[in-house]
Amino acid sequence: MSRVGIRDAYKALHAAFTAVSHINHAVSMLEWDAMAMMPPGAADARGDAKAALQTMSHERLTDVKVGHHLSVIAASSGEDVSTELSFEERANVREMRRTYDLATKLTPEFVTRQSVTVSKAEQAWRSMRKANDWASFAPHVKAVVDLAREEAEQLRAGRESELTLYETLLDKYEPGLKEHDLDNLFARLVGWIPARIKEVTASQAASPVPLPDFTTVRFPISQQAALGQRMAGDVLKFDFNQGRIDVSAHPFCGGVPTDVRLTTRYDERDFTQSLMGVVHEGGHGLYEQNRPRAWLTQPASAPRSMGIHESQSLLHEMYIGRSSPFLKLVSRMAIDSFPEAAAALEAQKPPGRPSALAPESLRRVYHAVKPGKIRVDADELCYPLHVYLRYDIERRLLSGTLDVADIPAEWDRKMRELLGVDTAGDFKDGPMQDIHWPLGLIGYFPTYTMGAAYAAQLFHAIRRDLGDATVDAAMEAGELGDIATWLRERVWSKGSMLSTADLLKSATGEGFNPAYYEAHLRTRYQP
Amino acid sequence: MSRVGIRDAYKALHAAFTAVSHINHAVSMLEWDAMAMMPPGAADARGDAKAALQTMSHERLTDVKVGHHLSVIAASSGEDVSTELSFEERANVREMRRTYDLATKLTPEFVTRQSVTVSKAEQAWRSMRKANDWASFAPHVKAVVDLAREEAEQLRAGRESELTLYETLLDKYEPGLKEHDLDNLFARLVGWIPARIKEVTASQAASPVPLPDFTTVRFPISQQAALGQRMAGDVLKFDFNQGRIDVSAHPFCGGVPTDVRLTTRYDERDFTQSLMGVVHEGGHGLYEQNRPRAWLTQPASAPRSMGIHESQSLLHEMYIGRSSPFLKLVSRMAIDSFPEAAAALEAQKPPGRPSALAPESLRRVYHAVKPGKIRVDADELCYPLHVYLRYDIERRLLSGTLDVADIPAEWDRKMRELLGVDTAGDFKDGPMQDIHWPLGLIGYFPTYTMGAAYAAQLFHAIRRDLGDATVDAAMEAGELGDIATWLRERVWSKGSMLSTADLLKSATGEGFNPAYYEAHLRTRYQP
Repeated sequence: MSRVGIRDAYKALHAAFTAVSHINHAVSMLEWDAMAMMPPGAADARGDAKAALQTMSHERLTDVKVGHHLSVIAASSGEDVSTELSFEERANVREMRRTYDLATKLTPEFVTRQSVTVSKAEQAWRSMRKANDWASFAPHVKAVVDLAREEAEQLRAGRESELTLYETLLDKYEPGLKEHDLDNLFARLVGWIPARIKEVTASQAASPVPLPDFTTVRFPISQQAALGQRMAGDVLKFDFNQGRIDVSAHPFCGGVPTDVRLTTRYDERDFTQSLMGVVHEGGHGLYEQNRPRAWLTQPASAPRSMGIHESQSLLHEMYIGRSSPFLKLVSRMAIDSFPEAAAALEAQKPPGRPSALAPESLRRVYHAVKPGKIRVDADELCYPLHVYLRYDIERRLLSGTLDVADIPAEWDRKMRELLGVDTAGDFKDGPMQDIHWPLGLIGYFPTYTMGAAYAAQLFHAIRRDLGDATVDAAMEAGELGDIATWLRERVWSKGSMLSTADLLKSATGEGFNPAYYEAHLRTRYQP
Repeated sequence: MSRVGIRDAYKALHAAFTAVSHINHAVSMLEWDAMAMMPPGAADARGDAKAALQTMSHERLTDVKVGHHLSVIAASSGEDVSTELSFEERANVREMRRTYDLATKLTPEFVTRQSVTVSKAEQAWRSMRKANDWASFAPHVKAVVDLAREEAEQLRAGRESELTLYETLLDKYEPGLKEHDLDNLFARLVGWIPARIKEVTASQAASPVPLPDFTTVRFPISQQAALGQRMAGDVLKFDFNQGRIDVSAHPFCGGVPTDVRLTTRYDERDFTQSLMGVVHEGGHGLYEQNRPRAWLTQPASAPRSMGIHESQSLLHEMYIGRSSPFLKLVSRMAIDSFPEAAAALEAQKPPGRPSALAPESLRRVYHAVKPGKIRVDADELCYPLHVYLRYDIERRLLSGTLDVADIPAEWDRKMRELLGVDTAGDFKDGPMQDIHWPLGLIGYFPTYTMGAAYAAQLFHAIRRDLGDATVDAAMEAGELGDIATWLRERVWSKGSMLSTADLLKSATGEGFNPAYYEAHLRTRYQP
């Protein structure tokens, strides 16, 4: 193929993906609206409109011309492609191909069947979860697992590398992730965390100073919202000229890079959750706002992976937000933001005790360890065990070494073993607690813990490059400029230009290394 | 053409217009978001995405297949069409044809040129209006008028009826409206209102009791918002399960019929504007929420015209909202909603004066007449003169009997004559005050006064059918159910099934008759 052919094909692809991105822009905003604004009675018509837009987006993406232009470039010599296309353009073509393959490898018959099955499973889940009815729900899980296996087989067809079925699903969310990566990661965690949880909870329970009791006062929602705005805008430098914070039942980061919509939720009796929620979603938001600007309509600008996205929220929440230096800043900001509550807490305080809003008190709140049934409520130390449990079940379901019927027994056994929690008979807050399986998102859970581990590795490199003293002083002062610059240059601005492995290597000097995550947990959670 | 052909063509058209409606759903929500939520830095990318969706919508609407299916039905015998399609389906085809013609009669070259010219004119208007720079702005008005003439010529081509160029433009917003309708309407108003304004303002100024001064107290925005929710939900029966009220710089009614998004704006020193704003937008919202449900994806469900839409907001604002019985309800609700302000106003009140929130005081506020330069701030009596001024200029520009260069002189002369207001040299708040001309919306202004006149005719019929005593009692009690049922059955649920003339005839028993509007103004505004 001539070089002119390569350039023309690239131009046509660029235009096609731009059109797709415009439709996806609308879909993103409609999704944000549905979670944050839409009244309940609007759901049906909105669902129809959104589905129609998604079909249009899919039609444009899977247009035969897109396939043709991709083949033109694929059939060209590597030398011609390198001459004709820049590094970024070649990365863009690679991500276009990946997006196109994910959209076209599944047969239309399968996509329809999957959509129907998943829709039924989700509907069933909403009612059966409430009723704690595993027996009725199990056939839906079975159907979803069978579909996932079929999906993996179709996606794997014609790929050169040897992937397990489960790895083919992992690859949708975390390109390149292998089971042995996850095995290495969890091998570093599962052995010692269960015992450590017992030690830490015992020592926290034995403390002569109880945790601060915020429920005796009120943190007005307007004051919490103002604090969240200050935290996101003044401290994290989330750009409110291209973003907002609103309220939704489940906090998330949505919208588009030029208009990032964060959400949080408020509890008048506890500001600590909504505040750290803003820091968490703010980390996602910074990643979105700093994606490569010139490429925003193109796949090359997409976030690298679910795990890398989560690494940015967790780096901000766990490594900056819950660090001792940063909690000094949080203490100052909280006292300033909640004058009435601060005064009331101070008045209630027995003599000799630290103030409820003192850094030391906040540290105890934010580092409390409390094993429980629910993943989304889990603390930092317990969280990876929840993920491990799901990962282990998923891959055995996929490889055929675990039956759906045996999930509850396996769940109960592992929850006891790992977290010392009794879940027997509680399907609702057991294997039915998450929406992922009914939505068909098998292979997604591990990205949460990969994100935590990426965050540890990145933050270790930040400390190494900027120096511990500088980083600690910056966190205490709430002046995160240098940390942000580091992340912007090495992660945010890269979009999907590099593979995850190359991204980590160029940012930190080494490939994925779960040792930093283990070290972080061992250091922070000591009996 | 066989009957099967008619049915198949209809089915295909139904599907095509459904697809268009799904895209338009997204565009509507994006437009609401841009006005009510979007941060300023998001405008460029949002503009690109919205333009792309509008192009897709236009492509689907103007697909040759749509034209073909419409021709199939048009070429069939009227008898076959009547046998095969229901009354509603035939109305739907008529509206499809109208929509298709408006989208296809203009040449692509013209559409592009128009879009560029209008975009330049709007940009110029934003800066030049601020600078009061008519000389620089005039060439843009000239360009827009030239385009409007060209547009009218293209739209008129091949139509059987004899329309003036200006009527062809009117027809875009108010199908079937003729210049002589407007001449009849304004002939009833322009003769006496200027003198009446002088008499009424003199008598209002001579009143021994001054207007209540609300600026000495505060009406907290949260209390105003709660009052607005009660007014819209409890009184007007706006359905909050399929709608919301938010804040925007310019109040409007947006969204889609299953999710109507009203907006208002608040002034802590004056609740009367935001409250009546909610009643006004609520009238638009009721029309939207009650469009024929089974037809929402189809042109037959569309609001009949801009004037009929405005008639619903004005019927609620002017005929219900500002009526003496309803202001008794408003008084009760205001005293209940603003306890601190009510108490403070009561404490300030000189003895013997009526309470500032008493019905009589509110009536004086809501019926105050005060001629001014700005159309959107005009009271009910002055408003039609502002529209008449613009109508008269527009049609003379179109017929070539007025030059753009002569607009300011004409403006000043008429403003003096009609409203007694001196606008000499003030272009900013003179002929440059409205966005309509820079946007190319020539022929739109008259729909405001048509709406006011339709509202008068409809409300007269409501009073006739339900009885004056019943209507007054319903308004005083805030129980508008019977009035809503009347409007739902005769107007809202009709969508575009009937022509405006037939809609008025079936609802009120006669064709358009501006006498009711004149009578209303003469009665309400007496010296």
